[in-house]
Amino acid sequence: MSGSTAWDRLGRHLHETQLLGSIQSTLYWDQNTRMPSGGAAWRGEQLTLLARQLHQRQSSAVYAALVAEARADWQSQIDAGDLSEVERQERGRNLELLELDLRRQQRQDPDLVAALATAKAKGYDCWQQARSSSDFPLFAPALEHLISLRQEQARQLDEDRGCWETLAQPFEPDLRLSRLLELFAPLRRRLPELLQQVQKAPRPRSLDWDLSEQQQQRLCSQLLEEWGRDPAITSVAESPHPFSITLGPRDFRLTTRVVSGQPLSCFLATAHEWGHSLYEQGLPTASHQWFAWPLGQATSMAVHESQSLFWENRVARSEPFAQRWWQRFQAEGAAVDSPASLWRAMNPIAPGTNRVESDELSYGLHIMIRTDLELALLEEGLPVRDLPAEWNRRYQELLGVTPLDDAEGCLQDVHWSEGLFGYFPSYLLGHLVSAQLSEAMATAIGSPEEHVARGDVSPLLAWLREHVHPVGRALNAEGLVQQVSGRPLSSDAFLAYLESKLECLAAAA
Amino acid sequence: MSGSTAWDRLGRHLHETQLLGSIQSTLYWDQNTRMPSGGAAWRGEQLTLLARQLHQRQSSAVYAALVAEARADWQSQIDAGDLSEVERQERGRNLELLELDLRRQQRQDPDLVAALATAKAKGYDCWQQARSSSDFPLFAPALEHLISLRQEQARQLDEDRGCWETLAQPFEPDLRLSRLLELFAPLRRRLPELLQQVQKAPRPRSLDWDLSEQQQQRLCSQLLEEWGRDPAITSVAESPHPFSITLGPRDFRLTTRVVSGQPLSCFLATAHEWGHSLYEQGLPTASHQWFAWPLGQATSMAVHESQSLFWENRVARSEPFAQRWWQRFQAEGAAVDSPASLWRAMNPIAPGTNRVESDELSYGLHIMIRTDLELALLEEGLPVRDLPAEWNRRYQELLGVTPLDDAEGCLQDVHWSEGLFGYFPSYLLGHLVSAQLSEAMATAIGSPEEHVARGDVSPLLAWLREHVHPVGRALNAEGLVQQVSGRPLSSDAFLAYLESKLECLAAAA
Repeated sequence: MSGSTAWDRLGRHLHETQLLGSIQSTLYWDQNTRMPSGGAAWRGEQLTLLARQLHQRQSSAVYAALVAEARADWQSQIDAGDLSEVERQERGRNLELLELDLRRQQRQDPDLVAALATAKAKGYDCWQQARSSSDFPLFAPALEHLISLRQEQARQLDEDRGCWETLAQPFEPDLRLSRLLELFAPLRRRLPELLQQVQKAPRPRSLDWDLSEQQQQRLCSQLLEEWGRDPAITSVAESPHPFSITLGPRDFRLTTRVVSGQPLSCFLATAHEWGHSLYEQGLPTASHQWFAWPLGQATSMAVHESQSLFWENRVARSEPFAQRWWQRFQAEGAAVDSPASLWRAMNPIAPGTNRVESDELSYGLHIMIRTDLELALLEEGLPVRDLPAEWNRRYQELLGVTPLDDAEGCLQDVHWSEGLFGYFPSYLLGHLVSAQLSEAMATAIGSPEEHVARGDVSPLLAWLREHVHPVGRALNAEGLVQQVSGRPLSSDAFLAYLESKLECLAAAA
Repeated sequence: MSGSTAWDRLGRHLHETQLLGSIQSTLYWDQNTRMPSGGAAWRGEQLTLLARQLHQRQSSAVYAALVAEARADWQSQIDAGDLSEVERQERGRNLELLELDLRRQQRQDPDLVAALATAKAKGYDCWQQARSSSDFPLFAPALEHLISLRQEQARQLDEDRGCWETLAQPFEPDLRLSRLLELFAPLRRRLPELLQQVQKAPRPRSLDWDLSEQQQQRLCSQLLEEWGRDPAITSVAESPHPFSITLGPRDFRLTTRVVSGQPLSCFLATAHEWGHSLYEQGLPTASHQWFAWPLGQATSMAVHESQSLFWENRVARSEPFAQRWWQRFQAEGAAVDSPASLWRAMNPIAPGTNRVESDELSYGLHIMIRTDLELALLEEGLPVRDLPAEWNRRYQELLGVTPLDDAEGCLQDVHWSEGLFGYFPSYLLGHLVSAQLSEAMATAIGSPEEHVARGDVSPLLAWLREHVHPVGRALNAEGLVQQVSGRPLSSDAFLAYLESKLECLAAAA
C-alpha cells in the first residue's frame, strides 16, 4: 500500500475498519443462514469482540488524528487551489460524515457498545424461542434490557434530538421526527379511507394453489437471470427472514424463504432483495467514493427500501409483468390461466396481521403502529408487559384484525430483538421515495410498466444507475429525492400511484 | 468473567484468542460454501488481517507474561501441595503445549505471517481457476511463492528438524520423518503386491446407475439421523470438497458434495465427515480441558482421520451395513438387488488417478506419491515446473495409471494451494491408527461389524467417547495408540484388515 498523504493514511485506516465491519457482516450472514441454534452464545461473544474492536478503532485518538490531519490537508489544498470543485465537495462531504460518526463513536462508552452487542445476540436468540412458542413473557426481559441500553446510548450520544430520533439517525440520516410525522400525516388520513373502500370488495390474500420449493426456486432463478444476476459476485441462500447484505466490494448476498401456502412469497421476496442488492452493486467505486469511504455507501434505509420496492412492486407486481410471466408460472404448475389471474394473485389487497406479507395499501398502517409503539416504549414510558395488548388494540383500530397470538402479533418482526428502534419508518418512507423517483423516471424515459411490457428492464436499471445508485452518501434521502424529482419529498406520488392501482385492480376484479 | 488467579487470566486470554480463531474458521467455512468467486480478494484481505491479529496475540509479551505467570503459579501450587496428581499433570501438559506454541509464534516475523495468509488466499483462488481449465502454468507461480514462504517459515522456526518435518508438526505433533518412513516402509512393499493380485480380477469403480441429488441427500439425512445427529449443534452444507469444521463449542459443521455418476460418493463422504465431527463433539470440555485450552483440542490430523475412516470404512463400507441398508438404497432408486450388490458397489478396488475417490488399497499409494513430492519440492530442489511430469511418472509407476490432464493429476488436491505441506501423510497414518484402534475396540466390546449387524452403533460411539475422544491433546497420536492398544503404532493392523477385506471381496465377487 503506497501513498503517504494524510488522505491516503486515512484511507488505509478506513479500509481496515471496513475489513472488520465486513467480517462482522459475514458472521451475521452465517448466523442467519447456516448456524445451528447451539452456536448462538459463542457467536454472540464473537460479535461482541468485533463490536469492541470496531468501536475502539472508530473512536481512537489515532483515528481522530487521521481525520483532523486529512481535514487540515483538505483546507490547505483548497487554499493552494489544488482541488477541483468536485474534489473539494466530495472530499469535504466525506470528511463531514466521518467527523459526525467519529463524534458519535467517541461519545459512547466501550462497555455500553459491548453490552449492546451481547444484548442483541441474546435478544435475537431469545426472540426466536419466544416466537416459536408464542411466549411473549419469555422475550420481555430481553426487550426491556435492550430498551434501557438504547436509551442509555441516546443519552451518551447527547444530540439535539429526542431518544427515538437519535436512534433513527443511522438508518435515516438527518431525519427529524417532526418531519416524519408531517410526511406520514396524509397517509394516516387517507390509508384507512382507501382500506374501507377496498373492503367492500376484498381481494383475499390466500390462494387455492401452491408450488413446491423446487418450482419456486426455478422461477426465482429465471427472474434473477432475466434481471442480469452475475453469479461471480452474487450468492443466494435461504434464511427465516429474507435479507440482502454486502460482504465485500465484489461479494453481494441475498436470502429468500419458501412459505408454505404462499406460492408467490419467495418470488416477490427475490425481486425485493435483488432491488436492495442492485443498489449496493451500483454504489460509486471511484477512488475516495469507494467501499470504505462514506460516499461509497448507501445513504439511507428509505432509499434502500425504495430500490427494493421498485423491483418488487413497480416491476414484478405490474400488469405487464404478469402478461410476460404467466405462462412460465403455469409451466411450473401454478393454477393461473391468464395474465389477469397471475396479476390478481400478485396483488391481494386485504388487511392482515403480518407486515412482511401485507399488501401495498395496508403496509403503511403496519408501520404507523410500530412507529407509535416505539415512541411509546422509548419516550412515553409504555411498560414492555403492556406491549401485546397495545399492539392488538391498534391492529383492531387501524386494520380491523386481531392476531391469533403474540407470535402472529408483536413477536412477528426481528428488529426489536436486535435493538433496532427507529428502523421501521424507513420502510414506509421507502414507498414514498420509490413512488416519487418512479414519477421522475417515467417523465424521463417512459413508465416502468411500458418497459416491462416491451420485455426489457435494462433501461430502468440504467436510469437508476445514472441518477440514484451512484449518489451514495453525497446526498441524504430527501436531498436525493429533491435532486432527482425537482421537488421535496411528499406522500403525493405514493398516494396517486396507490389510488390508480386500486382502481385498476377493482376494474380487473 | 470472575477469577483473578494467573490461571484464570491466562484462560481469558486463550478464550479471546479462540474467539478470533473461530471467526477465521467461519470465514473459511463461508469461503468454501457460499462466497461467490468475486469475493476472493476481499476475503483474502480479511483473513490476512485476522492472521496478523492472531499472531500478534499469540506472540505478544503480554501473553508470554501470562504463560510465565501461570507456570510459576503451577509450580508454587505443587510446592504447597495444592494440586492433585491429575491436576498437576493436566495443567502441566497444557502449559507445555502453550509454551511450545508460544515459542513458534514468537520466532515468526509478523510480515511473513501476513504474507502467508495472503498467499494462501491467492493460491486457493488461482488453483481454482487453474484446475477448472487444467492449466498448471497458471498455478505454478503461486505454488512457487507458497513453497518459498513456507521454506522461510521453517528457517524462522529454527527447530531441530528438516523443513518438511517442521512444517508437518502442526498436523502431526512430535512426528519425525524417519519414523514416518519406517511406518510407511511395509506399505511401500506390500500395497503394490496386493494391488497386483487384485488387478487380476479388478473391481471397477464406476457404477452403471446413479441417484439424483435429492435421493442422495435423503439417504445422507437418514444416515445422520440413525447416527444420532443433533441439529441444534450441527449444520450440513455443500462445498466443492467435503470437510468438517468446528466454529464454536456447540457449533459443528460439515459439508458434502454430490458427484455426478458416483451415487455413493456423497453418502460415504457424509459418513467420513461425520466421523471427524464426532471426534470434535467428543473432545473434553471440563474446566481447563475446554475449547480454548490445548487439552480440549484434537491431538493430530492422523487421529482425526482415524475417526472419519472408522465411520466411513469400518462401518458404512462393511458387509453388515450393506445388509441393513440395501433396501433403503433400493427404495431411493439405486440399482441394487441384494446386500452383496450394495456391498460390492461400496467397495470398488481399482487403481485410479483420484485420491479422494480411491479405494482403501490404493489410497496409501496416492499418499506416498504426495509425500515424496513434497520432500522433493521442499528439500530436494525439484523445480515446480517439473511437478506435472514427476506426478504422472509416479502414478504410472506405482498405480499403473496416467491422469488425462493436470486437473485430474497434480491439480486435484486443494492442500498445496493453501500452502499445506506435511499434511498428506496424516491421511495414511489415519488408516493405521484406525485399524489399530479398531482391533482394540474389537477385543474390548466385539468387532464393529458385529454391532453394525445388530443395527446399533451406539456401543461403538460410546467406546470411542470413553477411550479416544476425551484424550484431547493429553497424548500425541502415537501415545494415544499405545495407551489404547497396548503397543506401538505399526502398519500390522491395517495390512491385516486390508488383506482380510480383499479376501472377502474376492470371495463375494
